[in-house]
Amino acid sequence: MNNKITKLFNIKYPIIQGGMIWCSGAKLAAAVSNAGGLGLIGAGSMYSEVLLAHIKKCKTLTDKPFGVNLPLLMGDAEEKINIILSEGVKIIFTSAGNPKTWTSYLKEKGMTVVHIVPGTKYGIKCEVAGVDAIVAEGFEAGGHNGREETTTMCLIPKITQEVSIPVIAAGGIGSGRALAAAFALGAEAVQIGSRFAACKESSAHENFKQKIIEAKEGETLLMLKKLAPVRLLSNEFAFEVYKQESTGASKDELNELLGKARAKKGMFEGDLQEGELEIGQVSSMITKLESAGEIVEEIWSEYMEVLKKIVLESKTEL
Amino acid sequence: MNNKITKLFNIKYPIIQGGMIWCSGAKLAAAVSNAGGLGLIGAGSMYSEVLLAHIKKCKTLTDKPFGVNLPLLMGDAEEKINIILSEGVKIIFTSAGNPKTWTSYLKEKGMTVVHIVPGTKYGIKCEVAGVDAIVAEGFEAGGHNGREETTTMCLIPKITQEVSIPVIAAGGIGSGRALAAAFALGAEAVQIGSRFAACKESSAHENFKQKIIEAKEGETLLMLKKLAPVRLLSNEFAFEVYKQESTGASKDELNELLGKARAKKGMFEGDLQEGELEIGQVSSMITKLESAGEIVEEIWSEYMEVLKKIVLESKTEL
Repeated sequence: MNNKITKLFNIKYPIIQGGMIWCSGAKLAAAVSNAGGLGLIGAGSMYSEVLLAHIKKCKTLTDKPFGVNLPLLMGDAEEKINIILSEGVKIIFTSAGNPKTWTSYLKEKGMTVVHIVPGTKYGIKCEVAGVDAIVAEGFEAGGHNGREETTTMCLIPKITQEVSIPVIAAGGIGSGRALAAAFALGAEAVQIGSRFAACKESSAHENFKQKIIEAKEGETLLMLKKLAPVRLLSNEFAFEVYKQESTGASKDELNELLGKARAKKGMFEGDLQEGELEIGQVSSMITKLESAGEIVEEIWSEYMEVLKKIVLESKTEL
Repeated sequence: MNNKITKLFNIKYPIIQGGMIWCSGAKLAAAVSNAGGLGLIGAGSMYSEVLLAHIKKCKTLTDKPFGVNLPLLMGDAEEKINIILSEGVKIIFTSAGNPKTWTSYLKEKGMTVVHIVPGTKYGIKCEVAGVDAIVAEGFEAGGHNGREETTTMCLIPKITQEVSIPVIAAGGIGSGRALAAAFALGAEAVQIGSRFAACKESSAHENFKQKIIEAKEGETLLMLKKLAPVRLLSNEFAFEVYKQESTGASKDELNELLGKARAKKGMFEGDLQEGELEIGQVSSMITKLESAGEIVEEIWSEYMEVLKKIVLESKTEL
């Protein structure tokens, strides 16, 4: 495939692996990049020295392009940016923060900059800030999410209409069918989180991977909206949040309930009841543990099949 | 186009106009059917004698197939079913109730029966009950909605995998792009509500149509979850619901706040502040008042364009 995104990153397939906390280290990023997609190291759950080690490791595991995902609101964002630059990583996906803060600096240093947004008005700000592309992420996505609850189906056609830079669709995407749908809606690529979180090269705990594979439709919910909305898989912790939110718990009460390091406990240490399990609605479609390379190939071949079927049914002379 | 749904209803385009309260009378249903889609009279806001009058009127306005949407939980559902049968209407879309209750009877009478569901497990029940097709409606849809909050992007691939009867996608669909996406996800047709609610032939109040046209992304929210979840456009009433829900209002308190006939007040009488304005997220993409026929033609021609573009970019030999 040859479009704006495959050219921007110099990759074979317009498939990007989302940078996820506790799931996406060097091993996963390199596996996705080796398979022809774009792998991202998720810096959100790494201390600076851990990030440095993962970048160094990733360079030994692949000679293909890879990037780093960095939440800008982290206290040590500047330190991490310096590491990313000094290691010669050329691609950065930023999130959770203002794209204005760092984009010009990163562009001056020769980086390709992508920012992640949950709504069109934020996408317009990204274009003004000078980013190269946008990830537009819908309500169905796992983990942290926007307050407006706009779904991928509604967000992608709107944002692609309002910005001129290329858009990468995220949220609810884990198959060739969804890739075809994303293209139809106007995106030039997809970012996939959940399906890679549950794959062999993910650094998530095996318990969590198994829980994703078993997850059924309706078992995730967007919660903690008074703090920062986050999509969680149902377990004892999520049920407690649900109960407290139903009776009008305040921000402080929710913060106390949440406590510290819940995501690590669930996703990395495998505590399925008390941990915070961040995953998308598309988990209901994930049914087996595969390698990242198998996932990329499956998605692409399913995409081609779907396209052929639609064209045949539409009886068009294309 | 020639697929299971166009054959089932004997229509030209796989575009179905959702049966909506206060919006879809004979005028709208006939206009959509005359344009080559399938129009539905929305019985949910009609007394039996009003429904009878609309069916009679619709027969004078079109010789194409049209149907009736009937919420099964209405107290007078049986009476309305008798009217539908005695008037010789051949297509019924049922919702808000158990598909087992009426499907066998309606099938014996020679009707084509479609049931509307917000989740895969309900779709499986529909197939067992013997319906001819399913409308699968995502979280982004306007009006009443499921508790599991599954979006169209996640619901359609899952439900089409689990049932063998054809699936009509609904929720977030108002354009040729979204139609192409729905096909990619595995649907055989789309049901469109919001865009037809705001069209010339809709019986909605002009104030409400104008409000839909002005609606921006993020201005609808799924509310009243302790009663029956419903997607509403923001106004004074919705803000009051939001405030009370944030502080843990009970079912009784919400019922009192809601009161009676709020939807009629907003959608039919045009009280934009105190009325209940049911509309989908896709309202952010609706920008002008058009006729139903213009909408059908626009959607179909955009669909063909989108398809051509994707095929070109994929460089496939189809």
